[in-house]
Amino acid sequence: MAKTDKGPTESRLTFGRRLREERQRRGLTLEDLAAASGITWSYIAQVEVGRRNISVDNMHLLAAGLGLTLRELL
Amino acid sequence: MAKTDKGPTESRLTFGRRLREERQRRGLTLEDLAAASGITWSYIAQVEVGRRNISVDNMHLLAAGLGLTLRELL
Repeated sequence: MAKTDKGPTESRLTFGRRLREERQRRGLTLEDLAAASGITWSYIAQVEVGRRNISVDNMHLLAAGLGLTLRELL
Repeated sequence: MAKTDKGPTESRLTFGRRLREERQRRGLTLEDLAAASGITWSYIAQVEVGRRNISVDNMHLLAAGLGLTLRELL
């Protein structure tokens, strides 16, 4: 499998930015989204700034936590 | 972090189906996409059937291998 160590890919940053945008649009805190998605608020915070190579399952849980599909969140 | 053991999420299956669709639309074999993305053809085959909890970085590499953004691929 490809080793991607050239820093956050554009997709990580795009997903993180969109996640924060949609979370804030709904007036949700990190804790609120953590409760809704089952993912820890500290992990979400790192995803939002592109620091996590998040998996598709967790992307799905975060989208669902916002009431969105993954396609809508990207 | 949430343990997702309830089988392939809908997002895994959606991403896998779209990946195969776009690969076949371009007449690419698994080996062709492996060469273009830097990801092994056997891993791609498993992603296409929703058997891999693929990361956003690898989703990005596969999209780029098809000349697409991740948003276009979902």
